Amino acid sequence: MWWDGKIQRTFRCRLEQKPGALGRLLTAVGEQGGLLGEIRTVRMGGSAVDRDITVFADDLRHLDRIVRTVETIEGVLLLEVRDEVLELHQGGKIAIRSRYAIDSLSTLRKVYTPGVAEVSLKIRDDPSLARRFTSIRHLVAIVTDGTAVLGLGDIGPKAAMPVMEGKASLLETLTGLSGMPILLDTKDPDEIVETVVHMAPTFAAIQLEDISAPRCFGIEERIQARLDIPVMHDDQHGTAVVVMATLLNAAKASGRDLASSRIGVVGLGAAGLALARMLMFRFGRPVLGADILPDALDRLKAAGGEPSDLAGVMAGCDVVIATTGKPGLIKPSLVRPGQIILALSNPVPEIEPEKALAAGAAFAADGKSVNNVLGFPGIFRGAVDADVPRITREMLIAAAEAIAAFAKPGQIVPDPLDRALHRSVARAVARVALEQGLNRDDLTGYFD
Amino acid sequence: MWWDGKIQRTFRCRLEQKPGALGRLLTAVGEQGGLLGEIRTVRMGGSAVDRDITVFADDLRHLDRIVRTVETIEGVLLLEVRDEVLELHQGGKIAIRSRYAIDSLSTLRKVYTPGVAEVSLKIRDDPSLARRFTSIRHLVAIVTDGTAVLGLGDIGPKAAMPVMEGKASLLETLTGLSGMPILLDTKDPDEIVETVVHMAPTFAAIQLEDISAPRCFGIEERIQARLDIPVMHDDQHGTAVVVMATLLNAAKASGRDLASSRIGVVGLGAAGLALARMLMFRFGRPVLGADILPDALDRLKAAGGEPSDLAGVMAGCDVVIATTGKPGLIKPSLVRPGQIILALSNPVPEIEPEKALAAGAAFAADGKSVNNVLGFPGIFRGAVDADVPRITREMLIAAAEAIAAFAKPGQIVPDPLDRALHRSVARAVARVALEQGLNRDDLTGYFD
Repeated sequence: MWWDGKIQRTFRCRLEQKPGALGRLLTAVGEQGGLLGEIRTVRMGGSAVDRDITVFADDLRHLDRIVRTVETIEGVLLLEVRDEVLELHQGGKIAIRSRYAIDSLSTLRKVYTPGVAEVSLKIRDDPSLARRFTSIRHLVAIVTDGTAVLGLGDIGPKAAMPVMEGKASLLETLTGLSGMPILLDTKDPDEIVETVVHMAPTFAAIQLEDISAPRCFGIEERIQARLDIPVMHDDQHGTAVVVMATLLNAAKASGRDLASSRIGVVGLGAAGLALARMLMFRFGRPVLGADILPDALDRLKAAGGEPSDLAGVMAGCDVVIATTGKPGLIKPSLVRPGQIILALSNPVPEIEPEKALAAGAAFAADGKSVNNVLGFPGIFRGAVDADVPRITREMLIAAAEAIAAFAKPGQIVPDPLDRALHRSVARAVARVALEQGLNRDDLTGYFD
Repeated sequence: MWWDGKIQRTFRCRLEQKPGALGRLLTAVGEQGGLLGEIRTVRMGGSAVDRDITVFADDLRHLDRIVRTVETIEGVLLLEVRDEVLELHQGGKIAIRSRYAIDSLSTLRKVYTPGVAEVSLKIRDDPSLARRFTSIRHLVAIVTDGTAVLGLGDIGPKAAMPVMEGKASLLETLTGLSGMPILLDTKDPDEIVETVVHMAPTFAAIQLEDISAPRCFGIEERIQARLDIPVMHDDQHGTAVVVMATLLNAAKASGRDLASSRIGVVGLGAAGLALARMLMFRFGRPVLGADILPDALDRLKAAGGEPSDLAGVMAGCDVVIATTGKPGLIKPSLVRPGQIILALSNPVPEIEPEKALAAGAAFAADGKSVNNVLGFPGIFRGAVDADVPRITREMLIAAAEAIAAFAKPGQIVPDPLDRALHRSVARAVARVALEQGLNRDDLTGYFD
């Protein structure tokens, strides 16, 4: 997104009620390179209006320059600069709540002893009843070791918590699932696998997050092999689903048939490799791939892809998807006429869409609208509702198609905060579970 | 409690609006050995009243007998028999909620990317800020391997979930803390220790629950040794605190000075040994102990106590506390005049209080009112608020004294659902943290 890597502050300004004050203010912020977010009216006075203006800056020094400029504008009084993000993070963003008010001994005897004993004995005799009579059904672990958080790299597990809480908040808001961050104090793959496996009885699914490549590949595979609940590393498959959805709509917008297209992926990290695998499975033909790491190319080859290099992919493919994290990697001279180019690295893409189009691309987009939030909530809700032992490639593709189909005309992806989108993704995933006969739970009434 | 081991059902009955119907109904239930809970009026009709009556029975066959009897009572129509406990457990008792409604892209940008990145970087640079800007501050892991659940024994981790959720519900209701059940798929002490240590960055404290003795002793000690957050096995120290509170009030009621009393503990399991240790620390003199396991006596000796046997304890002590799980273990002939006897096993005590009193005891009580809920919520809230690296014996004793002091005249223990009780316990614990200089957090304003 365009705001990645930027800091945001709320400027509370008192503007004289005379024409031009707000325009002068916003122009001055823009001239200093500041970007604008929401503008809210806080108070309408007789001679002045107080407004809260969200300003995005590159860093604290940049912010300081903007503040000093705003302070000099005629007719504008800067009342305060607030860090609303930090205010909102005070005390964390999630809480574990009792679903019942325990306000009488009668309720206590039902939710705790002695009532609880009978429920426990029922589950002891038939463990599958845990799904009906406990919260396990809606609990999803969001597990990280903090080694690959956003674009920030290895910042450690506690520093990853605001991101994990954000994902938990989104899971609940968009699908009603209970996401529980689990921060690991180890980066050792064996210890990560053992820890997750040992606490797995608590959860209906395991969402791995922000674990660095190539460790993430083996960790995910080994955990899934030991558990009969869905395990998904979001940075691999969640991202691949959302990119796939973007690609489906890009092909539609440019009238290209993906099944007969030569597709290339530049950057074979967690997301790139998962995407390449998904594309090969969906279209039944090899994907060309490029990466600076020989190991990454070996993994692509083992998955049935064709190792190449940047020049090779650009020269040989009709569709190029770049997930390298390298700003400006793709020079306009490499672009071939008629190509679809998705340059997805944030905040700065491998090639600006305008430059790619000017160099002859038929369609070009960057990663500004490609947000994981489009994918993981519905995927997990569908898998958990269907009670599948794992998430299959077919389910992921169904999720991508559901996301693509939900975009309105002119949109490349839908609004990520639309709960109906996530319901649609969940249904698509659960429907495949039924078709594949993988669901353990009775889904009667699910598609009503 | 008297209801331990019993099942409860709700009888919806339509009673003729004539004198005597309700009395006949309740008498009949009693004659069949059924015990009564709440009686609620559901509907007042012109000629009849519908009432929900909670009935406790020993088992399903006993329940069946009661039902058949109720069906024959004149003027009473049994409309239905409902299992309200099971109804209430549908879907579990807890949920993880977002503290913010994420209903706009503006909010999304604050709770998730890009806003979250700045918060993560702040924590990377100063990990202590995780306490301010994440939910870690209020998250308490409630960890079990399901080996010693209630009086049910080793029923496995999933069957333990209703109990763990009950504890989480109580933590939130009584203190606002977020309790997160963690069910372990292993009983191996080494694996338990490693699993808890590796996920510990997520939490402000670790509450161990329902882990069988003697494994629980080493597991708790080893986890605490590796972490700098409080770790407490509730079945040891939480129970000991509540029993200590009961004992303080029993001594007060019978005018006995505990400091100069000879105290004995019969049954040196998790609770018994922890209690013996706490008594020795508090009163500075050895406690006599009895157990059928030689290892348990060795542990008592290592802790400074005096191994004995049942007859020895009964003959030699002014105060006897029994936590054996053995109904009727203490024969009236063993009771010495003037003794204080707390026979705490549930549902049937080692000696009925009436029999102990008849045999000459100065004070006698059973475990009906001794509920762990009195202790752990406030102890954890106080320790977490004070941000201590461990819970000390002084804090536990302060908690016991706070609980004892909160009982109203005539009560042996206070009402466990009174939030003011738990606030008082938390303050007592935090105050000791201040005195001991163990608190890392600034407690300014805590005692306002």
